[in-house]
Amino acid sequence: MTDQLHDTTFRGFASDNYSGVHPEVLEAIAVANGGHQVAYGEDHYTERLQQVFAQHFGEGVEAFPVFNGTGANVTGLQSMLPRWGAVISAKTAHINSDEGGAPERVAGIKLLTVEAPDGKLTPELIDREAWGWGDEHRAQPLVVSITQTTELGTAYTADEIRAIADHAHERGMRLHLDGARLANAAASLGQPLRAFTRDAGVDVLSFGGTKNGCLGAEAIVVLDPEASDGLKYLRKLNMQLASKMRFVSAQLIALLEGDLWLRSASHANAMARRLRDALDAGIAAGELPGLGFTQETQSNGVFASLPAGAADRLRDRGFKFYDWDASRGEVRWMCSFDTSEADIDAFVAGIREELQGA
Amino acid sequence: MTDQLHDTTFRGFASDNYSGVHPEVLEAIAVANGGHQVAYGEDHYTERLQQVFAQHFGEGVEAFPVFNGTGANVTGLQSMLPRWGAVISAKTAHINSDEGGAPERVAGIKLLTVEAPDGKLTPELIDREAWGWGDEHRAQPLVVSITQTTELGTAYTADEIRAIADHAHERGMRLHLDGARLANAAASLGQPLRAFTRDAGVDVLSFGGTKNGCLGAEAIVVLDPEASDGLKYLRKLNMQLASKMRFVSAQLIALLEGDLWLRSASHANAMARRLRDALDAGIAAGELPGLGFTQETQSNGVFASLPAGAADRLRDRGFKFYDWDASRGEVRWMCSFDTSEADIDAFVAGIREELQGA
Amino acid sequence: MTDQLHDTTFRGFASDNYSGVHPEVLEAIAVANGGHQVAYGEDHYTERLQQVFAQHFGEGVEAFPVFNGTGANVTGLQSMLPRWGAVISAKTAHINSDEGGAPERVAGIKLLTVEAPDGKLTPELIDREAWGWGDEHRAQPLVVSITQTTELGTAYTADEIRAIADHAHERGMRLHLDGARLANAAASLGQPLRAFTRDAGVDVLSFGGTKNGCLGAEAIVVLDPEASDGLKYLRKLNMQLASKMRFVSAQLIALLEGDLWLRSASHANAMARRLRDALDAGIAAGELPGLGFTQETQSNGVFASLPAGAADRLRDRGFKFYDWDASRGEVRWMCSFDTSEADIDAFVAGIREELQGA
Amino acid sequence: MTDQLHDTTFRGFASDNYSGVHPEVLEAIAVANGGHQVAYGEDHYTERLQQVFAQHFGEGVEAFPVFNGTGANVTGLQSMLPRWGAVISAKTAHINSDEGGAPERVAGIKLLTVEAPDGKLTPELIDREAWGWGDEHRAQPLVVSITQTTELGTAYTADEIRAIADHAHERGMRLHLDGARLANAAASLGQPLRAFTRDAGVDVLSFGGTKNGCLGAEAIVVLDPEASDGLKYLRKLNMQLASKMRFVSAQLIALLEGDLWLRSASHANAMARRLRDALDAGIAAGELPGLGFTQETQSNGVFASLPAGAADRLRDRGFKFYDWDASRGEVRWMCSFDTSEADIDAFVAGIREELQGA
Repeated sequence: MTDQLHDTTFRGFASDNYSGVHPEVLEAIAVANGGHQVAYGEDHYTERLQQVFAQHFGEGVEAFPVFNGTGANVTGLQSMLPRWGAVISAKTAHINSDEGGAPERVAGIKLLTVEAPDGKLTPELIDREAWGWGDEHRAQPLVVSITQTTELGTAYTADEIRAIADHAHERGMRLHLDGARLANAAASLGQPLRAFTRDAGVDVLSFGGTKNGCLGAEAIVVLDPEASDGLKYLRKLNMQLASKMRFVSAQLIALLEGDLWLRSASHANAMARRLRDALDAGIAAGELPGLGFTQETQSNGVFASLPAGAADRLRDRGFKFYDWDASRGEVRWMCSFDTSEADIDAFVAGIREELQGA
Repeated sequence: MTDQLHDTTFRGFASDNYSGVHPEVLEAIAVANGGHQVAYGEDHYTERLQQVFAQHFGEGVEAFPVFNGTGANVTGLQSMLPRWGAVISAKTAHINSDEGGAPERVAGIKLLTVEAPDGKLTPELIDREAWGWGDEHRAQPLVVSITQTTELGTAYTADEIRAIADHAHERGMRLHLDGARLANAAASLGQPLRAFTRDAGVDVLSFGGTKNGCLGAEAIVVLDPEASDGLKYLRKLNMQLASKMRFVSAQLIALLEGDLWLRSASHANAMARRLRDALDAGIAAGELPGLGFTQETQSNGVFASLPAGAADRLRDRGFKFYDWDASRGEVRWMCSFDTSEADIDAFVAGIREELQGA
Repeated sequence: MTDQLHDTTFRGFASDNYSGVHPEVLEAIAVANGGHQVAYGEDHYTERLQQVFAQHFGEGVEAFPVFNGTGANVTGLQSMLPRWGAVISAKTAHINSDEGGAPERVAGIKLLTVEAPDGKLTPELIDREAWGWGDEHRAQPLVVSITQTTELGTAYTADEIRAIADHAHERGMRLHLDGARLANAAASLGQPLRAFTRDAGVDVLSFGGTKNGCLGAEAIVVLDPEASDGLKYLRKLNMQLASKMRFVSAQLIALLEGDLWLRSASHANAMARRLRDALDAGIAAGELPGLGFTQETQSNGVFASLPAGAADRLRDRGFKFYDWDASRGEVRWMCSFDTSEADIDAFVAGIREELQGA
Repeated sequence: MTDQLHDTTFRGFASDNYSGVHPEVLEAIAVANGGHQVAYGEDHYTERLQQVFAQHFGEGVEAFPVFNGTGANVTGLQSMLPRWGAVISAKTAHINSDEGGAPERVAGIKLLTVEAPDGKLTPELIDREAWGWGDEHRAQPLVVSITQTTELGTAYTADEIRAIADHAHERGMRLHLDGARLANAAASLGQPLRAFTRDAGVDVLSFGGTKNGCLGAEAIVVLDPEASDGLKYLRKLNMQLASKMRFVSAQLIALLEGDLWLRSASHANAMARRLRDALDAGIAAGELPGLGFTQETQSNGVFASLPAGAADRLRDRGFKFYDWDASRGEVRWMCSFDTSEADIDAFVAGIREELQGA
């Protein structure tokens, strides 16, 4: 039998994908096991998954389970674009900053990026790159891509997304949404998934399960079939077609059929809130010299700034997290479905000790 | 709790990836769960996996877990080639016939294919395309790719692979091996994995876990580091980098640390053998009119030819399998780690009834 | 002033693109010079070129001048295919054998090739690869590409092309024609260009000017606008958009507005005929031991087989030409718009001396 | 004979590629004509061209003639990068803004762009994107690309380029230079080509002939062979290999063997200077209300700002030029090798009339 090689009690704040698999998801995998099922997506679980997505997003949507978020984003975007298409996104968008150039190399997509200090595009920001249609010297901006919640922990309101969708659609562009943390957005907004996606004009989205307690399960969800073409072929071409797809689908069913998706995301958000609130209180009390926040805490990530050296010293104390922008002392603290109140409290205590001792 | 949506007692002969997850693999996933582990491969399980591969292939090999076989093949080949490189393979190779053009589209690789009736390349067959080096009008043949066991259920001997490797190396080409069913080859040959791969001159291989009882776990294994470049980046670029990689690695550890890989593959091979032997006996006895075999049965697949209509009628009886080359009545029957003797015997009985009744 | 660096009296049989520029083409370039014209195709010459192509191919065709034949083929094919499309061609097709993998690497196109001994596809040959629509594991065969005249000097009749077009169209595939030597085909068939292209069901073609006396001028000609999308953008993307396009267009106008295209091609064909006839006569007279022909001489190329060593000895005598398939002593002798009767007669004399002396 | 379809006396200020072919270049093409020359670059003119480039850039450089500037840039950059490489450039760089996404789509290159108000990178600007080496989530910044003269008409000094080259090299990056207007830079700086390229640390450059009086002739010039790999194959793959290359090379020889390159570029620069000086004088005299300049005039382009409506009214008067940034009334006036003093004086007079009349 395989040895356990790691400390199962340790939890850090580095990333929500440092966590493992939620027990209910693991059980769902076991339930889907046994016997033979048709491979490559013609199994009963993938069929059921379509219904589960329809339950959340309405009739007529189509979901394509894939392996990971980069696969979902790149393949989804590619299905929305001719070969000469470009995508307008925030410079901080995962597709621009964290996918190793996969959109460009695998899908041949040019990204037209704009600076968005809080990670959120607006119609005005979009307009900086939304021009040049019909000019073959310019890659044609035909899709706008937003991230919800953003890479900076902020959340668009449904109205904000609607304004972007209208703006894009009026200019002949489609709206893509990278929803690696879509559940966290729903928890943050207190709205059903549909309210700020399909009902707000999003055409295609990446639905993320992995960061929310799956082993590895994402889906491209086509909300408007007119906006996407050839996903069946592109998923295979892009090497994102799982042979034993029943297990990918079963994970997403486990998340979405009941309320696990929302329970887990709400918990992760609440832990970030707990962390932020405790530190805000400390700051208000003048007890945390040098600590500040660089973004609103609207989901499961806290973006803070620390005095020089403090981040490294906190890491020396055993707390794990990443620098975000080291040049300005900015750090990112992520909470996960399995972050406990005790984890937060211990971290707050550590920060207090560190900053008060300084 | 997630419902079980399928009949867990049904097993067919369509593909070894219609089977599910071996219980020991599922348990290994559970063991790797809990707590936080660094994402994207810097976890303890992926570290251990390197040792496990070294145990099989020797020191100095490097393994890159990926999601699926197409990802392993395309990414591995890409790491072996400059942008102007081409790959010589059998026309029946999975990379040519079953990957939707991913080698061409994602990696820009031209495939130079040759007809190989039993799915096996030879130095002579390779020479049909091994020419034109230095001529920029010809995509440069710099890699030979073979499949072990082949897509036609046959197995190369270690000597055959060595002859191919020597032939390729002498001409400045490298040898890639698609090992989606490498375990079945080892079981068939009765040799350690290393004997007919690294020791026979293979430079880079795709090691398949999924068809042999994993949920979804493959690895690119670099046997000669001189033959491959940039896999770290290419795996990410090609959207094959798992965030929760510990679970991919844990599956492969479960397979390879002990003898599960060999037990499962040997069993699948034995079931194919049982099927072939029973039918050979029936043919010898003149009891199976119209049945023939189109390939040697050297692993877990049986390639047979049936009288017109018989395949469909067998499927109507509830046996599941695919036509291979419908134009000549050829069918493929695949066995899996979970195929039982009873499954075989029932299938043989069904074939007997069908053909005797005809 | 620039020195003349080469012997302007030497002409060989290596390739029709070893020749230079026809004086009338050079004059046309001079006529188009002077003053300013809008770049990138909005000049008066490119406008006129549209009319010139309409004069040959009928109303409603659209021509996109490009730099070279590979650019025309790859860009034209790409405009006919979604990202998951494949092209069925003869194995000897230029797109497969002489474009360095550009279709695969630049356009992501998988080529499905079949052996065609005389370089010509037939419906039966096409059917070897025309299958698998709807199966995402197979790159989708959506275009058939033929070459006219073929790389082996043979010419399709209009009826043969019509049969291929009907066969393709009935299966939902489009027909592309590589017309690097389309003028030679018209001269060979004694038919207008339209008769065996648009009227025979060809959807998109590459029209070659370079081999027929241009400096460097080809065009993608869309015969059925329904069959092609985005060429405006793809031409730019594929780096085939000339800034001073007036000079590319002027070359093609020079060729096509009058009968220069046909005069030059007819002459080249006639020179090949003269060569073939003289040698056939010699063979009939038993005077050319070991000489044979491997293809019909239907255009400007003669494919012959020579006794071992004879090709090299002829080259030592100063005659320039290429081996085609050295393994069987096959050579290719190409004639050009500037090949003279004296060139042919001297070559025949050389061959006679060589073979009789042997 | 081909009709002349355009007014050979009209010259505008829209682009230096609206001009035609310098008579000396056209004569060089004629000189290279006649007889047969080996195709695809093994001709005497391409051989001589190597010496001509060596004369300007020193021994050991290698030049690859190509069709156009996009082809030179994309192919040159691709030869400098592994598949996972990225390029740091100014946002205004031609590779980013005017190549239709070709770097991304054809070469799979991610561009990391920074705002550079005068079109010129600096070490500080480069550092905004020069980070993340070794992190597979980030496309690896391995090349810096600058344009000389820039798209905004400014010129780097040799020292500025040296500083960038040192900065790049110290960080393991190579330096590429888009020299579509390299001759204008030499004329502007009063230095030999080599002084601010090879001697300043540039590794690979695109040398532009077309904008400086060629019909269509550019070259990738490898200054440090260690910095580039596989250009022979990549040029073919990228469809930039001319069959009748002698004529591309002859154009560049005509330009570079004598001083035509410098005469033409100096003249174009002088015409821009004449325009700027006349207008500066008018502004100083208070006679040109609303006219301003947005960039230094350091080569053959003048970037000005005009009062609302004035640009259109000038165009109505028959002067041709483009808006550059319409949102701020910015226009671009380009001079060419064939711009005459009379052209400038008439344009100045037109501007005077327009602005004084306003």
